[in-house]
Amino acid sequence: MTFKPHGKHLIGGEWIGTDISFSSTPVSGEPIEYCEANDDLIDQAVKSAEAAFWTYGYATRRDRAGFLNKIADEIEKRGSDITAIASAETGLPEARLEGERGRTTGQLRLFARHILDGDYLDRRHDAANPDATPPSPDLKMVQRPIGPVAVFGASNFPLAFSTAGGDTASALAAGCPVVVKGHPAHPGTGEIIAEAIAAAAEKCGIHPGVFSLLQGASHEAGSALVTHQLIKAVGFTGSLAGGKALFDLCARRDEPIPFFGELGSVNPNFLMPDALANRGEDIARGWAGSLSMGVGQFCTNPGIVITLAGPESDRFADAAAKALGDVGPSPMLTEGIAEAFRRGRGNVAGTDGVKTLVKAASEGREGAPALFTVSGKDFLDHPGLSHEVFGPLGIVVMAANAQEMRAIAERLEGQLTCTLHLDDDDIEFAQSLVPLLERKAGRLLANGFATGVAVADAMVHGGPYPASTNFGATSVGSLAIRRFLRPVCYQSMPSALLPEDLRHIG
Amino acid sequence: MTFKPHGKHLIGGEWIGTDISFSSTPVSGEPIEYCEANDDLIDQAVKSAEAAFWTYGYATRRDRAGFLNKIADEIEKRGSDITAIASAETGLPEARLEGERGRTTGQLRLFARHILDGDYLDRRHDAANPDATPPSPDLKMVQRPIGPVAVFGASNFPLAFSTAGGDTASALAAGCPVVVKGHPAHPGTGEIIAEAIAAAAEKCGIHPGVFSLLQGASHEAGSALVTHQLIKAVGFTGSLAGGKALFDLCARRDEPIPFFGELGSVNPNFLMPDALANRGEDIARGWAGSLSMGVGQFCTNPGIVITLAGPESDRFADAAAKALGDVGPSPMLTEGIAEAFRRGRGNVAGTDGVKTLVKAASEGREGAPALFTVSGKDFLDHPGLSHEVFGPLGIVVMAANAQEMRAIAERLEGQLTCTLHLDDDDIEFAQSLVPLLERKAGRLLANGFATGVAVADAMVHGGPYPASTNFGATSVGSLAIRRFLRPVCYQSMPSALLPEDLRHIG
Repeated sequence: MTFKPHGKHLIGGEWIGTDISFSSTPVSGEPIEYCEANDDLIDQAVKSAEAAFWTYGYATRRDRAGFLNKIADEIEKRGSDITAIASAETGLPEARLEGERGRTTGQLRLFARHILDGDYLDRRHDAANPDATPPSPDLKMVQRPIGPVAVFGASNFPLAFSTAGGDTASALAAGCPVVVKGHPAHPGTGEIIAEAIAAAAEKCGIHPGVFSLLQGASHEAGSALVTHQLIKAVGFTGSLAGGKALFDLCARRDEPIPFFGELGSVNPNFLMPDALANRGEDIARGWAGSLSMGVGQFCTNPGIVITLAGPESDRFADAAAKALGDVGPSPMLTEGIAEAFRRGRGNVAGTDGVKTLVKAASEGREGAPALFTVSGKDFLDHPGLSHEVFGPLGIVVMAANAQEMRAIAERLEGQLTCTLHLDDDDIEFAQSLVPLLERKAGRLLANGFATGVAVADAMVHGGPYPASTNFGATSVGSLAIRRFLRPVCYQSMPSALLPEDLRHIG
Repeated sequence: MTFKPHGKHLIGGEWIGTDISFSSTPVSGEPIEYCEANDDLIDQAVKSAEAAFWTYGYATRRDRAGFLNKIADEIEKRGSDITAIASAETGLPEARLEGERGRTTGQLRLFARHILDGDYLDRRHDAANPDATPPSPDLKMVQRPIGPVAVFGASNFPLAFSTAGGDTASALAAGCPVVVKGHPAHPGTGEIIAEAIAAAAEKCGIHPGVFSLLQGASHEAGSALVTHQLIKAVGFTGSLAGGKALFDLCARRDEPIPFFGELGSVNPNFLMPDALANRGEDIARGWAGSLSMGVGQFCTNPGIVITLAGPESDRFADAAAKALGDVGPSPMLTEGIAEAFRRGRGNVAGTDGVKTLVKAASEGREGAPALFTVSGKDFLDHPGLSHEVFGPLGIVVMAANAQEMRAIAERLEGQLTCTLHLDDDDIEFAQSLVPLLERKAGRLLANGFATGVAVADAMVHGGPYPASTNFGATSVGSLAIRRFLRPVCYQSMPSALLPEDLRHIG
């Protein structure tokens, strides 16, 4: 590995150090010190973003697309260094990190194409009609960028949901400068990605305030960032507790701003009777694979399966237990996450009516799969069982009958995803569930697993609270750009005063 | 007038009375008693809306469009009764109310056409690609209705922003049942409009829970409505204080929901030097007309003009003063509004550096135009002068130079509209202001006045806080429907389980 982090913040194109620091301990090797952000530096970063907005917010779509593509190029150039430091920091395997890097650059290039296409501008024109009663004026509308955006890196995707991840890519695509508060679990990865973005900005001749990275392990830095009066929106992927605290701060500002938080989800899977009978054990093995992949550290991890009680669902649970029993412990993203996982697992195991099928010992930073079963009635009686335990923990809920399965669907909190496993003869059964599930989740799947969120135009990664704090938005896919736009209408405005994108309309 | 209000609530198709009541005092005639909503009835109305959602939320666009058009028909049928009671309640002239009725039915019909067109569904399809790395699944996306919506009627538009106004029309168009908390300043108008909606629902065979009207003069009813767990969003037009209180309640719910509030705005007008020199007095007369129309009770009332100090701006102020001096007192919407107007006027008059040009006596429910001038420096030094005074109150701000004019633009709070008055040679001057103003307002106008908000596809009636609580949204125009939609993605879903609108895609 040739990249050696210096531990500084990137602020308006300059690397700046601070006296206070925090330690980052890689999976193997010595701890590295990183500077901790303070109020002055946060103010400097946000003011630099505001300064950049006056040019970047008015740059052509071609120039912004060029910048996004250049960021992707600069990330690829640093590919092996990125994989090395990210793997050391997160414990994630190299192949996974290479895939995630491809996802990250793919996402940047998708947004470059998306803004060149221009449909996202939602341009509208109502021509003047002097003969109408009352006479109607010439109106032109376009979606404009909102100003500086704060982004919080996620622990579980050091690349695709962090420094140059989907929130940053969509905000930059919209025309909004970004200030990232990096996740303290992978500050070195943040640093090398920030270096790539700064290099791209310089090569494209873009104001360096367009991107800043603040390192920090304290809550104070995040709070100061979201309450800065020049920040106009926040993109966040993380825990319910942390996200809700920041959401509250955003709502209580003198000028409230939108907080786009993607928080927790248990991503329930519903097994229809025929699918269970025909291929229950296959589904169980697929589920075990999805549940334990990446030590279960995905927002879309399928934590709960709801099935009808009976010998077939017992076989399903046994097959899942067998598959999970073969998976050993692996390092989780941080020791704190591993501890929270064991705590959550203990809470589930200790709940009345819960039967433990798999619960392997693990310690320190490692986590190992766990599997439980519970009756539909006990599940309904203990709402705590439907809360997310971040990690490879599965619960098979054995509903007494179809009615109880629907009651469970009705009682669900908001989810990122809900999945149906069904065969042809299950359609009617599924039809009674789909309307219930559609109100609970941003994405409904048939016969698959929700891990692996395709970056595409039709993707929705969001959903009713607490899956996200804005059910109208998504943080993955091209629709994510809409979070950082606002409609502006120009009435009877001379062409010379219109934004570039409206000049040739009408 | 043949319509006699009975004063009851409309809940799920039934007219229901309550013991507690409040008085509504028309401009002339005897007070009428209206029932006051309570928690039980609010719960009943919302549960009825939720029950209706399971059919109405899945009705075809054709059926919903038919319902919207039928509501318009039923309103037109009651045209003269509506005008009579609205005029008695609000003191607004009959011609204005007839125009507003046309606007209201026009709005319902616009949304009917808009949903039939279907572009608002933003349907997206990414076909499966098994050869991609990783293989990508079939994804289909559509915008779906969010569930029951609460709407608050506005005092100043008893028809177009109230019971069957833009919020109700856009929510019903989206597929969301609506519970209206009627404004206590015009409960009889609310009642007859609710009667029209109920008749339309019955004739179209739509679940009666699709629309309820709760009467009430207390804050408690509004609070109980927005905190009901089955309400998924709120549409509101009204005061900053009232709106902010409800916004806070929505943000603090166990499940936070979006509050789409259209609150206060002073709608500044900037006079460019050539326009001032060439036709300052014409603009002054136009401004005076817009400012005093409807006793200044418009959200888009142009309360502030910013111009460059000098003999030409003195002549501008004199011409405005002369035009406003000819306008006598008129009844305002309520006595409370008239009192608040006089209080606000007193605050402005008593601010250091403010010179009074027009300040006619008025009492009780009447209000008369007021006009003041102030230097740019004093305006900047007294932020209170930039707060909305609801009513016919104008301030001419005399900026020392172009730089001070830009400083005033920079310091503005969020606005619904900003207006430029300019001639050909003012373009360059205006170009230095437009980027500043674009960040402050949802609509920018040239050479016109913002009163009279066209209902059109390209209209934006919204803006940064405090003009609205969601800068990404509008409450007028077809884009208003987006507030009540959420994207849902269906992955590899059999056609029989897709919503109607996605079945024939791909």
